[in-house]
Amino acid sequence: MSNTAGQVIRCKAAVAWEAGKPLVIEEVEVAPPQANEVRLKIIFTSLCHTDVYFWEAKGQAPLFPRIFGHEASGIVESVGPGVTDLQPGDHVLPVFTGECKECRHCKSEESNMCDLLRINTDRGHMLHDGQSRFSINGKPIYHFLGTSTFSEYTVVHIGCVAKINPAAPLDKVCVLSCGLSTGLGATLNVAKPKKGQSVAIFGLGAVGLAAAEGARISGASRIIGVDLNPNRFEEAKKFGVTEFVNPKDYDKPVQQVIAEMTDGGVDRSVECTGSIQAMVSAFECVHDGWGVAVLVGVPNKDDSFKTHPMNLLNERTLKGTFFGNYKPRSDLPSVVEMYMNKELEVEKFITHYVSFSEINKAFDYMLKGESLRCIIRMDG
Amino acid sequence: MSNTAGQVIRCKAAVAWEAGKPLVIEEVEVAPPQANEVRLKIIFTSLCHTDVYFWEAKGQAPLFPRIFGHEASGIVESVGPGVTDLQPGDHVLPVFTGECKECRHCKSEESNMCDLLRINTDRGHMLHDGQSRFSINGKPIYHFLGTSTFSEYTVVHIGCVAKINPAAPLDKVCVLSCGLSTGLGATLNVAKPKKGQSVAIFGLGAVGLAAAEGARISGASRIIGVDLNPNRFEEAKKFGVTEFVNPKDYDKPVQQVIAEMTDGGVDRSVECTGSIQAMVSAFECVHDGWGVAVLVGVPNKDDSFKTHPMNLLNERTLKGTFFGNYKPRSDLPSVVEMYMNKELEVEKFITHYVSFSEINKAFDYMLKGESLRCIIRMDG
Repeated sequence: MSNTAGQVIRCKAAVAWEAGKPLVIEEVEVAPPQANEVRLKIIFTSLCHTDVYFWEAKGQAPLFPRIFGHEASGIVESVGPGVTDLQPGDHVLPVFTGECKECRHCKSEESNMCDLLRINTDRGHMLHDGQSRFSINGKPIYHFLGTSTFSEYTVVHIGCVAKINPAAPLDKVCVLSCGLSTGLGATLNVAKPKKGQSVAIFGLGAVGLAAAEGARISGASRIIGVDLNPNRFEEAKKFGVTEFVNPKDYDKPVQQVIAEMTDGGVDRSVECTGSIQAMVSAFECVHDGWGVAVLVGVPNKDDSFKTHPMNLLNERTLKGTFFGNYKPRSDLPSVVEMYMNKELEVEKFITHYVSFSEINKAFDYMLKGESLRCIIRMDG
Repeated sequence: MSNTAGQVIRCKAAVAWEAGKPLVIEEVEVAPPQANEVRLKIIFTSLCHTDVYFWEAKGQAPLFPRIFGHEASGIVESVGPGVTDLQPGDHVLPVFTGECKECRHCKSEESNMCDLLRINTDRGHMLHDGQSRFSINGKPIYHFLGTSTFSEYTVVHIGCVAKINPAAPLDKVCVLSCGLSTGLGATLNVAKPKKGQSVAIFGLGAVGLAAAEGARISGASRIIGVDLNPNRFEEAKKFGVTEFVNPKDYDKPVQQVIAEMTDGGVDRSVECTGSIQAMVSAFECVHDGWGVAVLVGVPNKDDSFKTHPMNLLNERTLKGTFFGNYKPRSDLPSVVEMYMNKELEVEKFITHYVSFSEINKAFDYMLKGESLRCIIRMDG
């Protein structure tokens, strides 16, 4: 038992006071965990586009002051009443979505969209009592995605915590708590290419490259990367991407370009941009008879997916996925094992390291498109 | 060896001379089969909507005179040069689409859309030499779907012939050569409901009822039939349909009605109407996390399938199927066995019998919506 158990912890957190303004490192109070909660010491966190999107608050109701951060690794500091699955000292990944193990989704083999703990971007408090565990001089600071990992300590629902191999290096596996698993799982769990098949990946950011990594692991013979930014192509080769298509280089639809390259279409495609045009192209570029297209990227509110139904009747499959269909508690530990077994390569996704005091640099790298993943050292 | 082998056979056929005009029973000459062809004595044939659609010729280039018919059972009369898989006396089902066993589709476990013999509604001749095997006084009559079963004898490519159990009653299993297998396979091979799951069927014609039969065989707990014609509901109970929804009875979208009936959506849906509105409803009425929607009905040329991409990202799957994903030669014999084992009930689909001389009555029954399947006895 740590000597802080049951006590309020005072520690540093990067607080977003206003939309789009640099985070400020503040001293915050972190209340002890309540029923079904644990308090974590965050060791490493990384920055994901979703943090930036809600920090910019252009498309949603703003909720400030807030502590962002959801891709991280940490160690359990203390557990709330009745918690038996986790204990102080456990190495864990906090996750932005959860697994209650009780609802129909958790009991279904096919779904990871837990009714209780499914991602909720609007919620700024803990489920248990509708209160925040963070405060500054008694004034509450909002949570983000139930994780708020831009803090030395945070409180998380046990359904959103994956216990992992304590031998796993936390500065590496922290990136498996969101983006990498999303892309990887989209390929391994949903598109499921067979050895020797061809796969098209739309969008060569971290999620798309993780989808490519899944295709590489699956033994895909051709991995065709599609991106509007030609600078991404050289780097993508490290992720197994064998061919590149920039839609801007053609005066015909990219699905037609890909069909011509592949004698009728790729076997699988994974869409990781969120652009509705890319979604339609990703679907229409798969081969009739057996092609499977998987949508990962999050669309705009008013988007409409349109295609001629014959594209479906010719035996194509269209699926979407959320967090790569991984159940956070049941499945993430095995993703960490894939890395430990050297099956999954994580290092190549990590392009930058900064100390916690320099957290705003991580935002700059991402906004400039310079980073895939920037790791933030909480002890720095 | 039959004593007609190698000879032109003169026999009766129902010839469509003009679009939408009653068929005329004529004496036709049927040439001997060429390489990779067999000549069949048709014993029973039934009428399918596709025959009527192309006979009406409202949506396509008309091709007349033509011998329609593609749902049938028969016996091999003689085989062309080099044919070893089939021999005279074999009981068979001719099929409107084929399986060459050589192309990528035939070699794929997932596809039945043979490159060589995939359905071709425009072709009026045999593949081998671009000639018709039918003539009247030397003037060729066009084939239809490579089957032309409205004739006492017909010539078919061996890739379009399923050899079946000779004990199977040909007056029953003839309906397995098209519509019934299409609906049945859509459920059994593509939607794949698990025991106890709920299934919505859009369209309660023969194909939709065969999809319901598939759901019954799968052990579905609820089979919700959706149709605009309330008269179909009573009959549908025989096919395991447990609940009925007529979209006309509600002032909200039918997908919303079904979601409310089923605590969020059905587990599986199968769309058998071809209406684009029904296709969208069938997709949007399946449950997030695990729902699978299967499209069977053939849409209009200018239709566009539209949905919000979040409906996919919430882990729904949208698939289309052609001929229930059955490979004609490899898989149809086992469908016949399902009937022989009393697993599949075929009799309830057969509502009428007529003699060949009364074939136009079969068209009347279908056009008036009175029949599910009308069997035409070729010896009558």
